[in-house]
Amino acid sequence: MKVVIIGVGLIGGSFAKDLKKLRPGSQIYGIDANSTHLETALSLGLIDEKSDYSDLPNADMVIIAIPVDALVTELPKILDGVGEETVVFDAGSTKSLICKVVENHPKRRNFLACHPIAGTEYSGPEAAIENLYDGKTNIICEVEKTAFKLQETALKLFQDMGMRIRYMNSDAHDKHIAYVSHLSHISSFMLGKTVIEKEKNERDIFDMAGSGFESTVRLAKSSPAMWTPIFEQNKENVVETLDEYIQNLEEFKQLLLEDDFDGIYNEMNSTNKIKQILNGIPLTKK
Amino acid sequence: MKVVIIGVGLIGGSFAKDLKKLRPGSQIYGIDANSTHLETALSLGLIDEKSDYSDLPNADMVIIAIPVDALVTELPKILDGVGEETVVFDAGSTKSLICKVVENHPKRRNFLACHPIAGTEYSGPEAAIENLYDGKTNIICEVEKTAFKLQETALKLFQDMGMRIRYMNSDAHDKHIAYVSHLSHISSFMLGKTVIEKEKNERDIFDMAGSGFESTVRLAKSSPAMWTPIFEQNKENVVETLDEYIQNLEEFKQLLLEDDFDGIYNEMNSTNKIKQILNGIPLTKK
Repeated sequence: MKVVIIGVGLIGGSFAKDLKKLRPGSQIYGIDANSTHLETALSLGLIDEKSDYSDLPNADMVIIAIPVDALVTELPKILDGVGEETVVFDAGSTKSLICKVVENHPKRRNFLACHPIAGTEYSGPEAAIENLYDGKTNIICEVEKTAFKLQETALKLFQDMGMRIRYMNSDAHDKHIAYVSHLSHISSFMLGKTVIEKEKNERDIFDMAGSGFESTVRLAKSSPAMWTPIFEQNKENVVETLDEYIQNLEEFKQLLLEDDFDGIYNEMNSTNKIKQILNGIPLTKK
Repeated sequence: MKVVIIGVGLIGGSFAKDLKKLRPGSQIYGIDANSTHLETALSLGLIDEKSDYSDLPNADMVIIAIPVDALVTELPKILDGVGEETVVFDAGSTKSLICKVVENHPKRRNFLACHPIAGTEYSGPEAAIENLYDGKTNIICEVEKTAFKLQETALKLFQDMGMRIRYMNSDAHDKHIAYVSHLSHISSFMLGKTVIEKEKNERDIFDMAGSGFESTVRLAKSSPAMWTPIFEQNKENVVETLDEYIQNLEEFKQLLLEDDFDGIYNEMNSTNKIKQILNGIPLTKK
């Protein structure tokens, strides 16, 4: 199988690692706007050859793992270039705009809109890990618009990689993912900011912060280049989640100011049920 | 050495495990308001005997690991009961009020005010783990008020357990810890609440949430019985951190509403330096 991976960072590189294992005869071609990343991917053996869009017509599979702003401009060009039998899928954290820009593309049937819910706070080809996707959910949008045979090729790979598949329309995806992923990132970035602003002496943070703080600000290590366009494309939903989050924080503060500590207890107690919910979330194996 | 541990949950139980290892001849006596916890601690071998305050006069060491509201009422009684040569230390997440309630106690010199920055989101004796404190920071307040010989006994144990010691006054402790610990818990609880409220269908959270969400809401599993009195005792500092956090979230939202995505990028980029800070935080070994 001839596979072209566009964007050879954490996400694309981790696909490459699984492909090497699960489809041992495959030739993997890499494309990346960052030439250093491309060289690294080659030297790490994630890809077999550096490539460009001229390799698209003969590809069996094209995996696009680039920031969602680049995805919106590149996806139509990529579809222009691929062959009739090429399956193209993405890994973008937003789905509505991406589905919209190709809705009338003559090769719409070659594209499968995907969001594998997997990753770490690190980025670049060095961050790629084997089995990143094992046990994770892959959300597929507008599956009915993809040619059945091409769906099958992609789904068989996802299945072999250990992913669970969930089908959803792209607007519902963007709305739900704002809560369970995009808001988490903002809460973490702003928590990091609040503490850094206050604790000018970084040594104090280092000394006093425990694993709880580390856990809540972990996502503040994430790549701004990746996340800025996600927030831009999902602005409406993200603002809604932020409004609700700020409102909940304000209410908690109000309970404190009113010395309503029974209320504080109840707030925390009713949120404790997150335990049971989280028990179902597969963690990244590292 | 005769040790009395008051509160045999995660914190007290983990002290017990290290004591068994590092002070093999010790007899460990357990006291707990929760009789089920006490039985569990005994059956797990964390303690050698169930006990009560009548054992205090002959104790060499008393470790108090109970919620900070109980600590404020119990600490004076405990000091009343101990012998001249008993060292008593606590593990409370607040320090100002605790130091204040015993400032004029005739046995103030027997007490060392401690806050080992260690823990997990779990609680109870089953949650106790060996080496929980290894590599962690122990903040000691008003050390000059503790008898030198008694300081020495406690510090030698902390050192053998692998803890780093930092000295701080109790007001400074409460102010800094509000940022690096107490605020993290509120941000996590309110994030959990926001998502649970929206996603009535818990199956959807389960399916769409990844390890990033898991990480940011981990602290929302924490015990309300432990955290309510912490927020009560540190109310003033906590409200201040909440104000600043909410303000930062509002500013981020405003940048989104104004389509200032360069601003959004810069916010995240400048917070990325949390990476370097976090590299210094020792994580819980489990």
